[in-house]
Amino acid sequence: MERIGVYPGSFDPVTNGHLDIIKRASKLFDKVYVVVSLNLKKDALFTHHERVDLLKQVTSEFENVEIEFHSGLIIDYVKSKHANAIVRGIRAISDFEHEFKLFSFNNDLASEIETVILLAKPTHLFLSSSDIKELAKFSGDISKYVPEYVYAQINKKYKIV
Amino acid sequence: MERIGVYPGSFDPVTNGHLDIIKRASKLFDKVYVVVSLNLKKDALFTHHERVDLLKQVTSEFENVEIEFHSGLIIDYVKSKHANAIVRGIRAISDFEHEFKLFSFNNDLASEIETVILLAKPTHLFLSSSDIKELAKFSGDISKYVPEYVYAQINKKYKIV
Amino acid sequence: MERIGVYPGSFDPVTNGHLDIIKRASKLFDKVYVVVSLNLKKDALFTHHERVDLLKQVTSEFENVEIEFHSGLIIDYVKSKHANAIVRGIRAISDFEHEFKLFSFNNDLASEIETVILLAKPTHLFLSSSDIKELAKFSGDISKYVPEYVYAQINKKYKIV
Amino acid sequence: MERIGVYPGSFDPVTNGHLDIIKRASKLFDKVYVVVSLNLKKDALFTHHERVDLLKQVTSEFENVEIEFHSGLIIDYVKSKHANAIVRGIRAISDFEHEFKLFSFNNDLASEIETVILLAKPTHLFLSSSDIKELAKFSGDISKYVPEYVYAQINKKYKIV
Amino acid sequence: MERIGVYPGSFDPVTNGHLDIIKRASKLFDKVYVVVSLNLKKDALFTHHERVDLLKQVTSEFENVEIEFHSGLIIDYVKSKHANAIVRGIRAISDFEHEFKLFSFNNDLASEIETVILLAKPTHLFLSSSDIKELAKFSGDISKYVPEYVYAQINKKYKIV
Amino acid sequence: MERIGVYPGSFDPVTNGHLDIIKRASKLFDKVYVVVSLNLKKDALFTHHERVDLLKQVTSEFENVEIEFHSGLIIDYVKSKHANAIVRGIRAISDFEHEFKLFSFNNDLASEIETVILLAKPTHLFLSSSDIKELAKFSGDISKYVPEYVYAQINKKYKIV
Repeated sequence: MERIGVYPGSFDPVTNGHLDIIKRASKLFDKVYVVVSLNLKKDALFTHHERVDLLKQVTSEFENVEIEFHSGLIIDYVKSKHANAIVRGIRAISDFEHEFKLFSFNNDLASEIETVILLAKPTHLFLSSSDIKELAKFSGDISKYVPEYVYAQINKKYKIV
Repeated sequence: MERIGVYPGSFDPVTNGHLDIIKRASKLFDKVYVVVSLNLKKDALFTHHERVDLLKQVTSEFENVEIEFHSGLIIDYVKSKHANAIVRGIRAISDFEHEFKLFSFNNDLASEIETVILLAKPTHLFLSSSDIKELAKFSGDISKYVPEYVYAQINKKYKIV
Repeated sequence: MERIGVYPGSFDPVTNGHLDIIKRASKLFDKVYVVVSLNLKKDALFTHHERVDLLKQVTSEFENVEIEFHSGLIIDYVKSKHANAIVRGIRAISDFEHEFKLFSFNNDLASEIETVILLAKPTHLFLSSSDIKELAKFSGDISKYVPEYVYAQINKKYKIV
Repeated sequence: MERIGVYPGSFDPVTNGHLDIIKRASKLFDKVYVVVSLNLKKDALFTHHERVDLLKQVTSEFENVEIEFHSGLIIDYVKSKHANAIVRGIRAISDFEHEFKLFSFNNDLASEIETVILLAKPTHLFLSSSDIKELAKFSGDISKYVPEYVYAQINKKYKIV
Repeated sequence: MERIGVYPGSFDPVTNGHLDIIKRASKLFDKVYVVVSLNLKKDALFTHHERVDLLKQVTSEFENVEIEFHSGLIIDYVKSKHANAIVRGIRAISDFEHEFKLFSFNNDLASEIETVILLAKPTHLFLSSSDIKELAKFSGDISKYVPEYVYAQINKKYKIV
Repeated sequence: MERIGVYPGSFDPVTNGHLDIIKRASKLFDKVYVVVSLNLKKDALFTHHERVDLLKQVTSEFENVEIEFHSGLIIDYVKSKHANAIVRGIRAISDFEHEFKLFSFNNDLASEIETVILLAKPTHLFLSSSDIKELAKFSGDISKYVPEYVYAQINKKYKIV
């Protein structure tokens, strides 16, 4: 049986923390779909096309990882891929109540689909895309939090804006 | 590549919550070792032999699940089985800080070994072996929290004691 | 002495979780006022008139429950009704710090008015109006989270929009 | 209909925080039973007879409050009194996950019995019997945390010991 | 060696809780800079000029406290003042994960700069500028939460608006 | 004015996390007393004499740090040294409610004495003496968590036992 995982997120943009989860998920599953979801609430820095492209650039070394965009319910995407599990990367204690909620909803909607939680490594704790964008906006040095390619693209954005 | 998971715990005794995690882990891995660990701190109700037996009885339907006892560091057991991941079942928000600690330690000791967290279903939230033993001690009805076979064995214990 | 409770909220719209709290509060108090409050921060789906109507529809069986709208401070409403207590239903651990704050403020403003907290049942944990609206927006099945009448009205809203 | 509440605890000894909850519960219910429960785990300072006596001394002004001892499951005591609700006083955020667990168990055992949570006032936050005993043991001044009569009895205990 | 602390915040407006932290910080450091930062996300009640003025009015008795405005990264301000430490006042458990994040970021950016956390006194727990503004907007009595001078200014604002 | 800090703990034994806090405190205060307190509850590995010795060995480079033992209330020790502040090092979110409690008690006992909280660096998060002892007992590698000298002494202890 092939094991397929889906790792959803806004990825605006992908960080070193995301990248570590992708790498680890790629070892747990035969195939991992990284899914850029619609980001209605937050002010986006990158369009979803750009976010997909950034992810493709920085995950090219992982042969069993594929990047896609999906605008609807994640659980519908998971079903369409005949995937076994949703992968979630957790950076902070306060994320967990949210995870219990998502798991509870997804379990109601499709109880056959598992949710697998991977914890951020200590060096990636607290590292969110929003924080990195905030830091970049104020010219803080973000080079240690994102892949080199992403770093260059963020700098371009903030120079234009 | 065969994927092997190790699910450690005291299992004094195995509950419906544990059983649900075992079932779900058996779908994520080709092989799951459920490992009864030494229980130094707590007053045990069942000996580790009994705990292994209870687990064997209630998991007999899962062909890729094996029950063992291990008295040392879990990470050493995981290595000895060439396993890929430790499986953890989480019942409560307050468990997560403990999980970050364990993950951090295990990652220091053997970074190639993953930790996979599965969340308890809402009906199994808050359900611990200790609570069930406490309830049984005061003659509370525990039949909905443990497998039937375990229920009978707990009752025997408390009648003798 | 008559005991009067006030259960305030946005109720945009009332969920099965709210309904369970109303039912339980109706047994603790001689009279329960369910108060739809102004909802300044969030994007409302239903107007406050509609929210009052939905509540009236689904609580008609409770003889000692009355539905009203109030646009000012809840504590002023409570005083105007000569009520003894504010009723709060809690769905998640993270809600509690907020409750300590509200209680502390209300206790400063009117120390004779009690705050009574009722915990959501496990099946209603994590169930918020916002989450249900989000799910409905993406065509997820919300029928198990809201009363039948509310379900129909939500569907109407999202078809029109 | 008479409303009856049961407020259980170790009360070793009763503190100003407990007393505030008793006073507030006495206004919500027609009758409140304060129940001293067995205290198996902790090193008791007062016997359960003494704890009942201390409670009687400091609650004598509340006409609808009665003090009793019960050695079994609280839910059985609640049923025996035909009570409507268990009263819980909460001093800290970390207490709440425990409350969800107790509520969940009690709801399974007797769903008709409500659990009513009252929050400690800011001045009583963090105030536990254990902390007060620890403080008294090291000759710290505990006079502001316990009723005068209890203060005298604690001092006697620690002078004898 | 002179010890210099920087206490940053929105201070929209300064509360009694802030004032207590400023007073306490003024005893730990030879010099304390209270820094009004840009407030991009929230609807401001006072302009940053007004916020600086309010702070100056209510801290005039502290000889080693200076008030300034800074629109960039706080860590850059701290460096420009050759300060030793950032001072943070904490009112609630849920603030702490945020503090770990800020500390972690600031430690990456300038590891020689310390972060000193002071806890709010029980009477100032849960007391935020936002809550006070919300209360004032609905004509709640906020006189016990802010200095007298600030109280008058808030009232002016809400009468004009 | 000389600023004096007191950093209390069990230090059974001192870890790299403690050492980092001592180093940082030594920059905030003119003088820092590191105080080994009685450890009634826990099974001690080292006697308090040994714990004082270990601390002296590993802090010898800090000229303004002194190590002492104290068996009573910490606040009495702080007063006896005419110290300004208690220093607390925090490793985890769950530690904070405990800190609010301690601060509240100490503030009641001696409001002129400050409590200064320093956060553990990400690499020291979750690192407790108890965990390290547990790991050592099972022959786990603890060399990265404690100073070299302490490492040798722990190994001696566990070989003898």
